[in-house]
Amino acid sequence: MEKNDNDFPAKRFVISTRYAKIRSRERGFIMKRNCMIGQSGGPTVAINASLAGIIYEANKNQEFDKIYGAINGIKGLLEETYMDLTDKANDPKFIECLKYTPAMYLGSCRYKLPNSNDSTKPYVYLFNLFKKLEITDFFYIGGNDSMDTVTKLSKYAKENNIEMHFIGVPKTIDNDLIGTDHTPGFGSAAKYVATCMVEIIYDSMIYKVNSVTIVEVMGRHAGWLTAATALARNEQQEVPHLIYLPEVTFNKNSFIASIRELFKTKKNIIVAVSEGVKDETGNFLDAGSSYQQTDAFGNVLHSGTGKVLESLVTEEFNCKVRSIELNVLQRSAMHLASQTDIDESFMIGRKAIEVALNNETEKMMVMKRIAQYHIEYTTTDVSAIANKEKHVPIEWINKEGNNITKELYDYLFPLIQGEVSIPYENGIPVYLDISHLHYK
Amino acid sequence: MEKNDNDFPAKRFVISTRYAKIRSRERGFIMKRNCMIGQSGGPTVAINASLAGIIYEANKNQEFDKIYGAINGIKGLLEETYMDLTDKANDPKFIECLKYTPAMYLGSCRYKLPNSNDSTKPYVYLFNLFKKLEITDFFYIGGNDSMDTVTKLSKYAKENNIEMHFIGVPKTIDNDLIGTDHTPGFGSAAKYVATCMVEIIYDSMIYKVNSVTIVEVMGRHAGWLTAATALARNEQQEVPHLIYLPEVTFNKNSFIASIRELFKTKKNIIVAVSEGVKDETGNFLDAGSSYQQTDAFGNVLHSGTGKVLESLVTEEFNCKVRSIELNVLQRSAMHLASQTDIDESFMIGRKAIEVALNNETEKMMVMKRIAQYHIEYTTTDVSAIANKEKHVPIEWINKEGNNITKELYDYLFPLIQGEVSIPYENGIPVYLDISHLHYK
Repeated sequence: MEKNDNDFPAKRFVISTRYAKIRSRERGFIMKRNCMIGQSGGPTVAINASLAGIIYEANKNQEFDKIYGAINGIKGLLEETYMDLTDKANDPKFIECLKYTPAMYLGSCRYKLPNSNDSTKPYVYLFNLFKKLEITDFFYIGGNDSMDTVTKLSKYAKENNIEMHFIGVPKTIDNDLIGTDHTPGFGSAAKYVATCMVEIIYDSMIYKVNSVTIVEVMGRHAGWLTAATALARNEQQEVPHLIYLPEVTFNKNSFIASIRELFKTKKNIIVAVSEGVKDETGNFLDAGSSYQQTDAFGNVLHSGTGKVLESLVTEEFNCKVRSIELNVLQRSAMHLASQTDIDESFMIGRKAIEVALNNETEKMMVMKRIAQYHIEYTTTDVSAIANKEKHVPIEWINKEGNNITKELYDYLFPLIQGEVSIPYENGIPVYLDISHLHYK
Repeated sequence: MEKNDNDFPAKRFVISTRYAKIRSRERGFIMKRNCMIGQSGGPTVAINASLAGIIYEANKNQEFDKIYGAINGIKGLLEETYMDLTDKANDPKFIECLKYTPAMYLGSCRYKLPNSNDSTKPYVYLFNLFKKLEITDFFYIGGNDSMDTVTKLSKYAKENNIEMHFIGVPKTIDNDLIGTDHTPGFGSAAKYVATCMVEIIYDSMIYKVNSVTIVEVMGRHAGWLTAATALARNEQQEVPHLIYLPEVTFNKNSFIASIRELFKTKKNIIVAVSEGVKDETGNFLDAGSSYQQTDAFGNVLHSGTGKVLESLVTEEFNCKVRSIELNVLQRSAMHLASQTDIDESFMIGRKAIEVALNNETEKMMVMKRIAQYHIEYTTTDVSAIANKEKHVPIEWINKEGNNITKELYDYLFPLIQGEVSIPYENGIPVYLDISHLHYK
C-alpha cells in the first residue's frame, strides 16, 4: 500500500492500481485489490441483503481478489476477527440465502472510535491490518453511529495519505438518516408494524365493550416507524385512530380529550405511540420507568411508554385498556419483510461496489426517489450524515399532533410493497447458519 | 319445537324431524331445521376456520334451512344480536376468506351463565329465542369456559325436555382442554412462538457480549405454548437453552445456577418462560407486578414474569439482559398460521355438523391422534371438559425442570407443519370485513 501526498490520494491510487492490475493481468499475474465489509449497530432484516449485494457485485465485476467480512464490525477487527467470503461469493445459493437471513451474518458491534486526535492506537491497529490484508475498499453497513466510524476512518486515511475507499451503506429500521429518501431495513419494519396493526385490529374488535388498545412502536427520536402503523388503514378499517410521534410534544389533556371524542362514535379505539414520545418538560414519557436503560452510545433505551398511556386511560375511563409493546420482531421478522426493501437493500450494496470502483470515498450510499415510485442510487458525503437524525417533517403531521397527513402515507406506501417467500423446514423458517458468531 | 318426555328426546326429535322433513319434501314443502353458531373466549387464528367448517357442512348436506351466527356469543344472544349466514354459506369465496381471517368473525364474549338453579332468566330468554328462530342445533366454539356454557345449555334443555343439539367445538391457544389430543388454534400459536424464537436467536447473536434473552410466552396454568418454543431447535440451533413451565415450581437458585453453567460454554443464552410460572410459595412470579389484572372469569392476567427473570439475572450477572414479551400476536398472527391447524380446525367444524345430524348432544368435538400423524374426529361428554385444565405431563419435562423431553417435542412437531398463503393487498394482509362488529 503506497503512500501518496496528492490531494486525492485514493483516486490516484485506484487509477494506478487499475492500470497496474490490467498490466499485471496482461503479464500473467494479478495485483491484489481486496475488500472488507462490516456490519454495525442494531439489526434489521435487510442488512444482510446489502451485504449480499456487495459480495455479489464484488465477485461479478472481477476487480477483487479477496472479499473479507469483519466479524462483529470494527470492534471485531480490533481483535482481528474476520472471515474470508471469497469462495462463498461464487455460490449463488449462499447469496440468495444471505438476502433472506435476518440480523447480521457478520455480527455487529456498538463501538465508537475515539477521535484520532485523542487516540491513534485503534487506527494504527486497523490500518496495519488493512495493509496486511491488502484491503483497498472498506464497506460499512450501519446507521448514523456507523457512519461516524466511516467518517473517522476516511479522515484518518486522508490525513495519513493512505489510499483506500471508505463507503457507508445505510441501514436502520428508524429511517432517521439524513440525505437518503429512506433507509434500507425501514420498509420491512414498516410492513411488520402495519401487519401487526391489522391483526391487532381483529384481536381488539371481538368484545362488545369499550376498549382502548395502545400499541408501542420502536423509534427513539424519529416517528417514521410509528407513522407506518397508518399503512394498516384501508376502506374497511381506519385504524389506528390516533398516532403519537416524538416530533410532537405529548399533551396528556389533549390525549384524553381525543379518546373521549372517539368514544362518541366508536367502541374499540387503537392508539399507536412511539417509545420516544416526550412531555412538555422535554422528558420522555416513560422517564420514571424502571426499565429504562442506556446503550454504549448513551442512547436511552425505552420500554414503558405504552404502559404510561395505559395508566392514563385507566385513570380517566371506565373501559378495557391494554398496551402492546411491539418487540424486537420489528427488526428481526424476516418472515414479514418487504420485497421492495430487500431488493433495494441488495441493489444499494451492489451500487456501493460500483461507487468504490468509480473511485469515490468518504461517502454514504443514498436513495433518491424519482417520481412515485422509482429509486436512483447515488452518494452523499458521509461526514454530513454521521450523528444526525432525520425527523418526520412537522407538515406531515396533522395540526392536532395526533395523526399523519396523506403526504406521509403516500411517502410510506411504496416501501412495504411485495411479500418475500422464505423457505420453511419442519414448520419453521430456515436461515443461514450463523454459528460462526460465537454460538457454541 | 315439540316437547318430548323420552329419556333421549333429542334423538327422537331429530329422527322424527328427519322423517318429517323427508315427508315434507316429498309433499313439496320443507320443515325447518335451523342452526345457530357462536364463538366465545379469547381469539385464535383458527376459530374462524371452525366456523367456516360448520357453515360449509351445514350448507353442503342440505339438512339446514337457516344458518345463524350469534354476534358476541351467548351474551350477544341475550341482547338478540345475531346474523343470518345462510346466503354467505353458498359463497365459496366467503368460506375460504373466513378460514383465513384471524380472531372471531362473529365476535366473542366472556360471560358465564348462572346455574339454572340460581337463575332461569337468561335460559328462558335464550330458549325463547331458539324457539322463535326454530333452532334445532347450537354450536359453540370456545375454550373450557365456553364448554361450561354448552354444558349448562344442554342440561337446561334436557331438564326441560327441549329437543335440541348442543355441540361444543374446542379452540384455545393454550391447548389446555382435556379429552382431545390438542386444541384447534394451538398449532398456529405454537408455530408463531417457534418462528419468533428463531428470529430472536438471530437478533440475539449479533453482539460479542454475554447476554441473556428472556422470552415470555402466554399460558396461564399450562405450559404447552411455552414448550412449543423448543420447535425452534434444529441442527444449527439448540435454542431456547432453558424452558420454564407453570407445571414446575420455579426455583430462583436453580435458575441462576443453570445460567451460570450455560455461560461456561455459551455467550448468548435464551430462556423461554411461561407467564404463569409460580414460586415455592405458590404465588405467581409476577404477583407483585403492577400490571396484574383479572378477567371476567376471575382469571389473573399476567404480564411481567419475563421482567422478573430479567431482574434476577441482572442482579447476579454482569451481562446484557433483556426480556421480550410475546404479545397478542400469539393468538392473532394469521400470517404465520399452521396449515395443519387451519385444516384441522375446518374439519372439526364440519364434523360437528355430522355429529349433530347423528343425533348427539351435550358433546365436545375432540381429536384423537392415530399414529404419527393422523387425526380422527370424535366426541366426548362436554360436562367432563368444562372448567378443567390439561397440564403438560410431568414426565414430559426433564428432571431439572428447565427443559422438555423428546416425547413432548415429538408431540408438538406435527402441529406446526405447513404454511398458509394469505392474500396481501397494498402490502398488508386482507382479511374478511368485520365491520358488523360494532366497528363504526
